[in-house]
Amino acid sequence: MTTTALRDRPSEAARAAADAADWLAESSPRQRGELLHAVADALDDAAAELIPLADTETALGEARLTGELARTTGQLRLFADVLADGTCLEVTLDAADPAATPPRPDLRRMLVPLGPVAVFAASNFPFAFSVAGGDTASALAAGCPVVLKAHSGHPKLSERTAAIVSAALTHAGAPAGTFSCLAGRGAGRDLVQHPDIRAVGFTGSFDGGRDLFDLTAAREDPIPFYGELGSINPVVVTRRAVAERGPAIAEGLVGSYTLGVGQFCTKPGIVLIPDGAGFEDLVAAALPSAAGGRMLTERIARGFHDGVRDLVVTGTAELLAGSASRVDMTTWRAEPILLAADVADLVQDPDPLLRENFGPACVLVRYRDDDELAAAIDVLPGSLTTAVHAERADIGELAGVVSELRKRSGRLVWNDWPTGVAVTWSQHHGGPWPATTAPHTSVGATAIRRWFRPVCYQDYPDELLPPALRANNPLGLPRRVEGRFVAKSTSDD
Amino acid sequence: MTTTALRDRPSEAARAAADAADWLAESSPRQRGELLHAVADALDDAAAELIPLADTETALGEARLTGELARTTGQLRLFADVLADGTCLEVTLDAADPAATPPRPDLRRMLVPLGPVAVFAASNFPFAFSVAGGDTASALAAGCPVVLKAHSGHPKLSERTAAIVSAALTHAGAPAGTFSCLAGRGAGRDLVQHPDIRAVGFTGSFDGGRDLFDLTAAREDPIPFYGELGSINPVVVTRRAVAERGPAIAEGLVGSYTLGVGQFCTKPGIVLIPDGAGFEDLVAAALPSAAGGRMLTERIARGFHDGVRDLVVTGTAELLAGSASRVDMTTWRAEPILLAADVADLVQDPDPLLRENFGPACVLVRYRDDDELAAAIDVLPGSLTTAVHAERADIGELAGVVSELRKRSGRLVWNDWPTGVAVTWSQHHGGPWPATTAPHTSVGATAIRRWFRPVCYQDYPDELLPPALRANNPLGLPRRVEGRFVAKSTSDD
Repeated sequence: MTTTALRDRPSEAARAAADAADWLAESSPRQRGELLHAVADALDDAAAELIPLADTETALGEARLTGELARTTGQLRLFADVLADGTCLEVTLDAADPAATPPRPDLRRMLVPLGPVAVFAASNFPFAFSVAGGDTASALAAGCPVVLKAHSGHPKLSERTAAIVSAALTHAGAPAGTFSCLAGRGAGRDLVQHPDIRAVGFTGSFDGGRDLFDLTAAREDPIPFYGELGSINPVVVTRRAVAERGPAIAEGLVGSYTLGVGQFCTKPGIVLIPDGAGFEDLVAAALPSAAGGRMLTERIARGFHDGVRDLVVTGTAELLAGSASRVDMTTWRAEPILLAADVADLVQDPDPLLRENFGPACVLVRYRDDDELAAAIDVLPGSLTTAVHAERADIGELAGVVSELRKRSGRLVWNDWPTGVAVTWSQHHGGPWPATTAPHTSVGATAIRRWFRPVCYQDYPDELLPPALRANNPLGLPRRVEGRFVAKSTSDD
Repeated sequence: MTTTALRDRPSEAARAAADAADWLAESSPRQRGELLHAVADALDDAAAELIPLADTETALGEARLTGELARTTGQLRLFADVLADGTCLEVTLDAADPAATPPRPDLRRMLVPLGPVAVFAASNFPFAFSVAGGDTASALAAGCPVVLKAHSGHPKLSERTAAIVSAALTHAGAPAGTFSCLAGRGAGRDLVQHPDIRAVGFTGSFDGGRDLFDLTAAREDPIPFYGELGSINPVVVTRRAVAERGPAIAEGLVGSYTLGVGQFCTKPGIVLIPDGAGFEDLVAAALPSAAGGRMLTERIARGFHDGVRDLVVTGTAELLAGSASRVDMTTWRAEPILLAADVADLVQDPDPLLRENFGPACVLVRYRDDDELAAAIDVLPGSLTTAVHAERADIGELAGVVSELRKRSGRLVWNDWPTGVAVTWSQHHGGPWPATTAPHTSVGATAIRRWFRPVCYQDYPDELLPPALRANNPLGLPRRVEGRFVAKSTSDD
């Protein structure tokens, strides 16, 4: 454990981050890319240590955790690619025009880092949304020092990962304070109120996220809060799809909603299904193939237990399969459960059925016709994703459904399941409130944009411009010049 | 006056905007460009009516108002150019890769409008930051219906401008509700809390902006608040610059801070000057050349009067020229005033000297050496702009000063004055809090980005994709394909 990895106090960590901020802001995109590669390589090298440690603390299993670590280091390297591409800096040059009315000065714009940021790790992705996850990777890529608030669900893994990240950064030449790690809810609340912290990235529960959001908004100088707070990820299944591929869709649904013991932000929590098509029975029949498992934390197990019990005890949803008390609060083990309701129930009292149940539960909501389907979609809240399972013959009738779903989703999935998030240039992981508090989130290339702000230099001498804006383009960056995009030159720094 | 221009109630206006949102969201960039041109042309055609009306209500003078209307219609046309360019939609395509682990789906991303937005007009730019200003232009360009809250400083002009905007939009084929206008502070507060409003643009006072920001943050579903709240726009003048060009710099400063009776967001409010170089005398000598004038509103006149009085009566600043009560509260007429203080005063009690005094006042703060200059910069808050007046011989010594100024500014100006904002691709009008609440603001091409959110389509059939994402690129948009930027094709819709 290096001294920079874990800090005792938020103020100490924030001050150290502030001390590192100038160096990072003045580093070249290439230098920051090297830092990201160094972190990725160090984590890959430590896989044999980190994966068993993660499994001990999360019970997510070696296969899943191996894939997740690969995704995490791939994500770090993606942001190195984003920096190498260079368009993310948005270099824009407009030459002076003394003949304009009024005369136009020379204006040169680019994005610069916001400064130190706070990142809150999630419990359910101990690598990809934790210490070295997407928020950390994108913030370091932007040139922002990171103070990470570790999740209590995997403390030892967090500490080890933080130590590896810090050591790799130090070895690659970054100053102390570039990355540090804190633990404890109080530390997190202090952190987002610290004057040196300029933005916050958060993935977690609605209540925890809203609390931190409110703290950042109440600051004397409010700062951006990029939070992912919860999502029910509605799915629509058409009557034709059930007729053509019912059993396969039912199996796919069970696989998706029970994956990782249902502990995904993208878990399909509510499925609008045609009434009287027998789809409930197909899903119930597929359910025994799904495994239960130990949940991530006692808090999550308790929340799942109580949420399902409330739905069933109050008669809000029928229990189709599983038991309403299939969470063992001693072992935190949960078994899959299947619930159902009618559109009329949903429309009459939407909130209970639309509450995210983090765990292996899913509510099938039966619609009788297109009007009921539309009425159900109308009450859906914002979500990270929506999915449609349909046949080609349905396409002509679905434009209206897709238009309404888009208003409520960040990602729209066709004949597939929302769990599983490929990290690519076009991917993102936002959605209308409460899915996320801001459009750009921790997954995909544009995640970096959250940590930047623009500056514009007017008539500045070349010697005092940052290299990215100098006349001879020493970093070989792509630029928009006089309104036209000029691709990256072949030179490099 | 068409019925869509002025609405009585915020809820009626917001609902009408929501009704128009689908049409706008599905319109092509080219269609929206035509709407913007129609509005610009209609305003230009009405110049002979609008400019005298604006002068009656604001006393800003025909020359200034003629230029401002041209800037405003130019800005509307700039956003039509931004749409024609098309990169603002950020179309990004990643092909499926079944061989990847896990298999990668087809992912297609673009930006879509947030929905109806509220825009708050400012008093000091009755065209460029009012009814048809940058917020309205960029929001319509993005495809967001606009509910405008008019400023009470120019009610008749607002009503006429709104009627012209509405008529032009209707004539160009936009649905009713695309644009409407409200008046009254209570209406504005209701508006930002209305469930159909998805974002807010604001230019105005710190107190008014903070109040609305807090309302948006306290919503059950918080929405983005893009506010410009106030700025003191610090200027640094070097000793060499005074020695070489003192009188010219002094004249430039007086011209800048008294322009428009000092009622610019970018007015230089505090100037760090070398002690003992005689610069105060040069500024005082130039002051009689500057005219006073009627201020925009009684509230602004009162605020200026009280702000200057407080500085002088408390001994916070010395009065170098002008009188501490040079605001006539009957006519709202204010005369220029020049104040001074030492860095020691500023550092000991920064807040009073750093408060924005909206009006023709400027505080010269004397620094004795580089350490005092650094100490003064250290206490400066975020601003829209900073400016440096220096000689080439200073450049080698200024890197640290510029680095610290950048942390506090959105735009950095060299040997020029911050007033006068060219509207170009690289321009912007943001700055660290309290200058603006978010990095991207109402001036410059990226202003459009505030009104968008990303959506990503996974494996969707071509028929259900928006045209921008279809395989044959019917809109001829520039796209990032497999991570590489592909410039606009020659085809068009």
